[in-house]
Amino acid sequence: MSDLDRLIQLLAKLPGLGPRSARRAALFLLKRRESLMQPLAAAMAAAAVEMHPCLICGNLDTADPCRICADPERETGLICVVEDVGDLWAIERTGAYAGRYHVLGGTLSALAGVGPEDLHIDTLLARLHEPGMREVILAMNATVEGQTTAHYLVDRLAGSAVQISRLAHGVPVGGELDYLDEGTLSAALAARQVLKGGKD
Amino acid sequence: MSDLDRLIQLLAKLPGLGPRSARRAALFLLKRRESLMQPLAAAMAAAAVEMHPCLICGNLDTADPCRICADPERETGLICVVEDVGDLWAIERTGAYAGRYHVLGGTLSALAGVGPEDLHIDTLLARLHEPGMREVILAMNATVEGQTTAHYLVDRLAGSAVQISRLAHGVPVGGELDYLDEGTLSAALAARQVLKGGKD
Repeated sequence: MSDLDRLIQLLAKLPGLGPRSARRAALFLLKRRESLMQPLAAAMAAAAVEMHPCLICGNLDTADPCRICADPERETGLICVVEDVGDLWAIERTGAYAGRYHVLGGTLSALAGVGPEDLHIDTLLARLHEPGMREVILAMNATVEGQTTAHYLVDRLAGSAVQISRLAHGVPVGGELDYLDEGTLSAALAARQVLKGGKD
Repeated sequence: MSDLDRLIQLLAKLPGLGPRSARRAALFLLKRRESLMQPLAAAMAAAAVEMHPCLICGNLDTADPCRICADPERETGLICVVEDVGDLWAIERTGAYAGRYHVLGGTLSALAGVGPEDLHIDTLLARLHEPGMREVILAMNATVEGQTTAHYLVDRLAGSAVQISRLAHGVPVGGELDYLDEGTLSAALAARQVLKGGKD
């Protein structure tokens, strides 16, 4: 196989790129050797060597413990449990969370043969004994697998003294009711917030 | 900027990837360090150093002259002129062409300030004097810029003894008439092929 075919074949494995767009990407790179191709190759090689999962929370970082676990400004009594590092990044982008994280590394799935022992659940349970721990926020995806995993975790955490919460379901900000699925709309109705109390 | 941010920023420059899919791609890579990330970084670094435009035709290859120009099996009297290396690859994939190529490196464009001197036209004209040269196929895109460039080339090649041809316009194989634009359909009608002669 030629160098070029190999490059295209590897690029085509990236999510969002197929064989055709991988060819386009390869050609795009070859026309930008110095400005893009070499820096990208170097950034990729560096990240492959330097980025590792944090031994405490599972976040990917060049530091271990990761910058979030090591940050003294962040609340240590609050753990947000996510399926994947991508979810952690999504919550970090909101800037609305100042606690720490725990990355499970997936969801329970009978179909895919993923059991509790395949997820980072034991390390989560161990963290609950840290002094000052007060709340675990379950931030699983609102999928069947995510919710199954959340239910399992509620059972496993039942004996602990910490508070357990989950993300609110409801109408997405900017969302139009007409386009929402019934499940979301039902959840938004059931969890409606009172703006003004009624007279009694 | 962190290593990760830099990797995501560079990935987001690839065609077909935006900021969100670049993050997904970065995470995908970080989870496949040995199987994908390091090989891709190496393939990219190698291709950036080893692949160069062929001095004869402009094709990108590790060899110079490129493998197509150097192949004694290919017809030397036939040159297919394309805008870009991607178009050359597209024609090569058909397996239906056994001549050689000439990559212009773009199209004429008053808007983008691309004049004839910015394209590899002089080297094309020089190749016409090679012994045995008999046909130049203009395989520009069927866009305004491509066709403008083709017209310009026909003028420039007018004094030469070689035959000049262009790709046929018509109904794409598998295409449905109902979904075709009027221009293509008109061209297909005008260039209709006689299946059986009429009686005179």
